[in-house]
Amino acid sequence: MKHLLTCQALSRDDAELILDSAQQMAEAVRGREVPKLPTLRGRTVVNLFFEDSTRTRTSFETAAKRLSADVVNFAAKSSSLSKGESLRDTALTLQAMGADAVVVRHGASGAPQQLTRWLDGAVLNAGDGTHAHPTQALLDAFTIRQRLGEVEGKTVTIVGDILHSRVARSNVWLLSTLGARVRLVAPPTLLPVAAQKWPVDISYDLDSALSDTDAIMMLRVQHERMRDSFFPSVREYARMYGLTAAREARLPGHAIVMHPGPMNRGMEIASSVADSPRSTITEQVTNGVWVRMAVLYLLLTSDSTSNTLHGTGTEARS
Amino acid sequence: MKHLLTCQALSRDDAELILDSAQQMAEAVRGREVPKLPTLRGRTVVNLFFEDSTRTRTSFETAAKRLSADVVNFAAKSSSLSKGESLRDTALTLQAMGADAVVVRHGASGAPQQLTRWLDGAVLNAGDGTHAHPTQALLDAFTIRQRLGEVEGKTVTIVGDILHSRVARSNVWLLSTLGARVRLVAPPTLLPVAAQKWPVDISYDLDSALSDTDAIMMLRVQHERMRDSFFPSVREYARMYGLTAAREARLPGHAIVMHPGPMNRGMEIASSVADSPRSTITEQVTNGVWVRMAVLYLLLTSDSTSNTLHGTGTEARS
Amino acid sequence: MKHLLTCQALSRDDAELILDSAQQMAEAVRGREVPKLPTLRGRTVVNLFFEDSTRTRTSFETAAKRLSADVVNFAAKSSSLSKGESLRDTALTLQAMGADAVVVRHGASGAPQQLTRWLDGAVLNAGDGTHAHPTQALLDAFTIRQRLGEVEGKTVTIVGDILHSRVARSNVWLLSTLGARVRLVAPPTLLPVAAQKWPVDISYDLDSALSDTDAIMMLRVQHERMRDSFFPSVREYARMYGLTAAREARLPGHAIVMHPGPMNRGMEIASSVADSPRSTITEQVTNGVWVRMAVLYLLLTSDSTSNTLHGTGTEARS
Repeated sequence: MKHLLTCQALSRDDAELILDSAQQMAEAVRGREVPKLPTLRGRTVVNLFFEDSTRTRTSFETAAKRLSADVVNFAAKSSSLSKGESLRDTALTLQAMGADAVVVRHGASGAPQQLTRWLDGAVLNAGDGTHAHPTQALLDAFTIRQRLGEVEGKTVTIVGDILHSRVARSNVWLLSTLGARVRLVAPPTLLPVAAQKWPVDISYDLDSALSDTDAIMMLRVQHERMRDSFFPSVREYARMYGLTAAREARLPGHAIVMHPGPMNRGMEIASSVADSPRSTITEQVTNGVWVRMAVLYLLLTSDSTSNTLHGTGTEARS
Repeated sequence: MKHLLTCQALSRDDAELILDSAQQMAEAVRGREVPKLPTLRGRTVVNLFFEDSTRTRTSFETAAKRLSADVVNFAAKSSSLSKGESLRDTALTLQAMGADAVVVRHGASGAPQQLTRWLDGAVLNAGDGTHAHPTQALLDAFTIRQRLGEVEGKTVTIVGDILHSRVARSNVWLLSTLGARVRLVAPPTLLPVAAQKWPVDISYDLDSALSDTDAIMMLRVQHERMRDSFFPSVREYARMYGLTAAREARLPGHAIVMHPGPMNRGMEIASSVADSPRSTITEQVTNGVWVRMAVLYLLLTSDSTSNTLHGTGTEARS
Repeated sequence: MKHLLTCQALSRDDAELILDSAQQMAEAVRGREVPKLPTLRGRTVVNLFFEDSTRTRTSFETAAKRLSADVVNFAAKSSSLSKGESLRDTALTLQAMGADAVVVRHGASGAPQQLTRWLDGAVLNAGDGTHAHPTQALLDAFTIRQRLGEVEGKTVTIVGDILHSRVARSNVWLLSTLGARVRLVAPPTLLPVAAQKWPVDISYDLDSALSDTDAIMMLRVQHERMRDSFFPSVREYARMYGLTAAREARLPGHAIVMHPGPMNRGMEIASSVADSPRSTITEQVTNGVWVRMAVLYLLLTSDSTSNTLHGTGTEARS
């Protein structure tokens, strides 16, 4: 594993190695007086964000600094890219400056994959178009494991705008790889045609999907979509696909409520549900730092990637 | 002392502890070959700025780095807050990422107080609305002490747009707590009604306030206010409330001239006065770093807050 | 050498000291497990950029961090400068905060020179108006030396918009100081009148300048200039002054192709030429980090500047 681009390309062994490493990160940092590991001292991690995302950028920045790496924020908007430089030339520039890892968010699906053609360093996809957001899915899986013991055999219901959601896509692939049963619930206009071929169950009715759900994942409604014809009205959406207190009460006692944030309280999720003991929303943020530390560690420590990671992978498969 | 929100809530003991600690910071850093203390290694300080202020943000960033903390700049404008996230959810996110301290600037008075409801870490108010800017007042008091020996018994005259000034409010409370006599000089339109109840003298005439002043503090004229009806014309304002060379000559020989910056030279202060030996303007900037180091140190070092700070406080009061 | 403002003011000894130090930086960093030197621990480097330039800012930031300095990015656009603060007061503020070095980019020629009047710390010019960009010329000279053995006696052809190019100006002075023969090739409208007095040959015909060139440096066409009357059409410019594959074939076998980036592929340089083995474009980026490390080191390490630098300089001249 040299890059982290999608969850679809991740073997079960690799995924579990990341989750186990994240667990080790959490324990290592929590046990130290100075909550910081020297692992990546002198390494440079570049945050290359073509779309604003202070939350995700901050999470990666915190993860890299906890591993003692140097972090350079390369805001692509104000960069020479606005002067017409190509993605390839930007990649070659970062490479030449000595970037050991590039964390990239881009509006075009596939841009991180493109970057790997030009960079010797590791590429970490922090969200590309409607394609993938692998560290989000990994932190979600970590959270399910933490709360429910394991992912295998759990029923995870993902609700909302599947069509435009890279979070949903990454979760579909990762969770099914890890042995979960994944169910998508969405209005027909917000389900991609391709979902028919994914390893998922599909439903248009949230109410019938509650009673056997172990983890329910509410996707963010993006306001800019509301103006399109994809959506019914706000009130209508909340009524049909929002996780209200009444619906929450019909989940099994052990079920957890997840949201990748930022939330629209009162829209896809009722405020009381977001703040209930079932909610894992802030734990997801915390776990995001551990998962990103684990990925940076595994991708940037050559021994760990060539030996441990693929070694374990091959062994387990043979 | 867990947070630093206002100067009004600061006891004299706490204020003096901060000023003494700032003095120690200045001496500790100046005496070292590597001008940096290891005190906050591994701690994360988040700058959460909803209003641009490169000066204040840079001062806090420098202070945190001199204490070896990791600093994350969370520019609230480009963050998910613009996607409708609430202040509370942003706070919970920073908390979950492991922020040990949040330095916040916000356009709404009281926002930092709100943050303390949701954050376990320390909240440092870097300016909220027209309410408070406590580290500014602390660095002003530090500067007065440095130049005039002590704050107790000094007459401090604050001149200008008191109505909109959080700097003035924080100074009123801190300086009177420390035993100074505070006088406000402003046009009637720029004095809040509440000032009648503050521990201050009020005057509308700058010329009569000069001869017994030990420290004169000129507030910045905010150009955007000039368009409102608060202000007379620029020329009229400078003539009536500007610190001209002629007025400066009428101050006592030992008196100092202060300004929180950035200045409008030729408006509230003549350029020659800003550059005169009386002027403490650049010293105030330097002292800002020491004071912010002291506050970060006191709030983030649990022993110092529970024992030293409140210990000393209680002791001195008993 | 206290500041680095222009290449015109740089003696040959100082220039060679910088290039030699850059070579040492490259070797020192490459040989270390942790690719970082402790040299500037505790020092603060401020990036004061009045014009966006993510590439140059990132290069300086990387260089400073590899020397273990703390870096503060002071984005002048969002700072109090937009509130009307003068350059001088900004300088005094940075000085008072304890900046050991200020890296400045400014749209006005001479702004870095102005800054030296108010700052005790070192000023590094990262590009001012159409005046100078000394670290760019130094990294270019470093690259020529690396590829061709030495600068002395080489013929360097600089092609394009000389009129608006600080890169060209700095290269003219540095390369001629180092003993190269410099030739400028440009349309008459894009050559400054002053160039008649520079130590250069001037030509309007690119084709006749190829056969004896050791290094050809293609300047970026700035799209915003194309709207002015300086330029012929895009196609016409590329045909007359672009480095096409056909022209590249007529360069001597050992000649190298340089570009300061970001490139307009297909405009001033054909894409195949930019990617050919002759091209040093990504090496230039890498060398930029070594050169900037060397300059920061020489300017911030007092012993090295007072003894080594001027010592060597004087000695060699006597």
